[in-house]
Amino acid sequence: MRVGVTREQRAGERRVAATPETVQQLTALGLDVVVEKGAGDESGYSDAAYKEAGATIAAKLALGALDVLVHVRPLSPATAKALKKGAVTIGLASPSTELPTVAALAAGKVTAFALELIPRISRAQSMDALSSQALVAGYRAVIEAVMRYPRFFPLYMTAAGTIPPAKVLVLGAGVAGLQAIGTAKRLGARVSANDIRAASADEVRSMGGTFINLDLDTAAEGTGGYAKELAEDRAKRQRDLLAPHVAASDILITTAAIPGRAAPLLVTTYMVKGMRAGSVVIDLAAESGGNVEGVVAGADTPVAVDGGTVTLVGLQDAPSAIPSDASRLYAKNVANLLAIMTADGTVSPDYSDEVVAGACLTRDGTVVHEPTANALAQS
Amino acid sequence: MRVGVTREQRAGERRVAATPETVQQLTALGLDVVVEKGAGDESGYSDAAYKEAGATIAAKLALGALDVLVHVRPLSPATAKALKKGAVTIGLASPSTELPTVAALAAGKVTAFALELIPRISRAQSMDALSSQALVAGYRAVIEAVMRYPRFFPLYMTAAGTIPPAKVLVLGAGVAGLQAIGTAKRLGARVSANDIRAASADEVRSMGGTFINLDLDTAAEGTGGYAKELAEDRAKRQRDLLAPHVAASDILITTAAIPGRAAPLLVTTYMVKGMRAGSVVIDLAAESGGNVEGVVAGADTPVAVDGGTVTLVGLQDAPSAIPSDASRLYAKNVANLLAIMTADGTVSPDYSDEVVAGACLTRDGTVVHEPTANALAQS
Repeated sequence: MRVGVTREQRAGERRVAATPETVQQLTALGLDVVVEKGAGDESGYSDAAYKEAGATIAAKLALGALDVLVHVRPLSPATAKALKKGAVTIGLASPSTELPTVAALAAGKVTAFALELIPRISRAQSMDALSSQALVAGYRAVIEAVMRYPRFFPLYMTAAGTIPPAKVLVLGAGVAGLQAIGTAKRLGARVSANDIRAASADEVRSMGGTFINLDLDTAAEGTGGYAKELAEDRAKRQRDLLAPHVAASDILITTAAIPGRAAPLLVTTYMVKGMRAGSVVIDLAAESGGNVEGVVAGADTPVAVDGGTVTLVGLQDAPSAIPSDASRLYAKNVANLLAIMTADGTVSPDYSDEVVAGACLTRDGTVVHEPTANALAQS
Repeated sequence: MRVGVTREQRAGERRVAATPETVQQLTALGLDVVVEKGAGDESGYSDAAYKEAGATIAAKLALGALDVLVHVRPLSPATAKALKKGAVTIGLASPSTELPTVAALAAGKVTAFALELIPRISRAQSMDALSSQALVAGYRAVIEAVMRYPRFFPLYMTAAGTIPPAKVLVLGAGVAGLQAIGTAKRLGARVSANDIRAASADEVRSMGGTFINLDLDTAAEGTGGYAKELAEDRAKRQRDLLAPHVAASDILITTAAIPGRAAPLLVTTYMVKGMRAGSVVIDLAAESGGNVEGVVAGADTPVAVDGGTVTLVGLQDAPSAIPSDASRLYAKNVANLLAIMTADGTVSPDYSDEVVAGACLTRDGTVVHEPTANALAQS
């Protein structure tokens, strides 16, 4: 069966859904891999390397001839329509925001797997692209802060005096937040963090951070390990309790995202104005509206404070800033999912497997992911 | 006596020679401090903060009325000429490249102290601006590499596989090199280093690096702890021995500078071409000609290699990239030197002090630093 690897089209996207390493993995399963020319250029994987790994290179993918298409960003409706009936797609599908593509996939009887829907169970961890890419984003968030911060991160004791370490506050202690904590800690910063899930306190501490307890009365734990939304009055209370911690930090990194929804507002402009000049705020949720008031995705916004400015960074495409390793992990996630559906060179999803069933978005002309089906019905 | 703090004029220079902290130190010595309006804007020290610390703010410094002028970058000949007879200047003077300014300082009977000439003895460490700024530059060199590197620095063991740590090679293990080693190590990289001074092997190891021994037959130790130039045939042999280490590294940071001279060529284009695609080379000596062939100060140059490019970075104004803490250390260096020349509110250099005598560039109409006097005589 023929597996196509697309060259990503979206501006700013530098990742690729297969690497020479996963091409080897897939060809060993008996699959033929076709890589679109230049698909790995931006992430450092050359056509020659794919070829050497056993792939063929196509100037353009013949979409109608593919049995499987692997991708990073959601497909366009046009690409979805060009696929043959029964073709399998694997990639990030962002079903809640890409309904026209979902409709086209269903109409074309394409079997689409959305990596966002991979169940968060331990057997599926090696296919969990949200986690692998959040790891990259969390690391990168700290690097972006270090670049813009006019002071050191570590403590320095020098002949000309002692420079104290930077104080970093991380809001949201999921995979990205925990990686941000660990990376800032490596660089010698003093790190504290908060998450509305009480369970995260131990994880924060295990990465070397200090957990900030906010007295919000109840724990908020969503299904599948994600945080659920707080009622508005509790959100207000949360902001009031966070304000002094924000004011005391030199670096603020926010990572609170709710899949398929607008990001919760955690930090107001008033709170940012309490920070000292030179401080840096990195909002990893900027693409879904932001955790910080006034953030602009893909841009730096100066916020005037006493004696200078605070830089508010709307981080966009964070994994694409480390495209080589982000692709390496992503491609493994894709290949691992494809592997559990493949036997003797044939891709044949077994829906009695909860991972396969859970990740499936469309098949046989039906949108099988219920929330997406409901959203489509209402649109 | 009146001490003026200039607003730096050179493009790209964001530091300032005094901070509110050192203004307090100087006023406590009985000195009047005048800060040029906006002098600390770029480094995060506001006019209001200087005022609060006891300084007055002047729209423009009245140069002829100053007893002392503190600065970061070398003065222009015009500024030197505007100073009164007997005025004291303290700052980086780069005497070998700024002969017209040196001549103007001598002609005007200005007493100029060059921080580059501070003796490298332990009592003078707190005034050693070359060291304090090299510390900033070494830290920054790593951050600039991390920003451009398409992979992680640390080892990551994830559900989707293990990512090995970046391999960092540092050439030149002075203050900047040692800080680069320490910072790369903090970030989880595997670090090795070389310096032609055999004595640096222990320092490299103390920062967590592996010292690379090159069999160059003899040790090269210059006066005052700086490396002296290698004869050309030995330099060639050094490059041959380094080539495999360069090829094996993902990140190369070069820091070999000889004060007042062109930087030695350590790495040829041929050697860079041995590195794998995506690798990053940071040349901290770019401003003095570079340690790496083809480097352009202030620019990124892609070098084509098998399967992609290596990015060759001519780092310029590295301390100005962390202007707040770089200024903090620099201003302390300046204030500490001024302090040992000040008693009862009067600045009166005592040339029986080897630090004061060593740092003096011009006084009473004479260029007292011999190499500079010789260079002027020959110009």
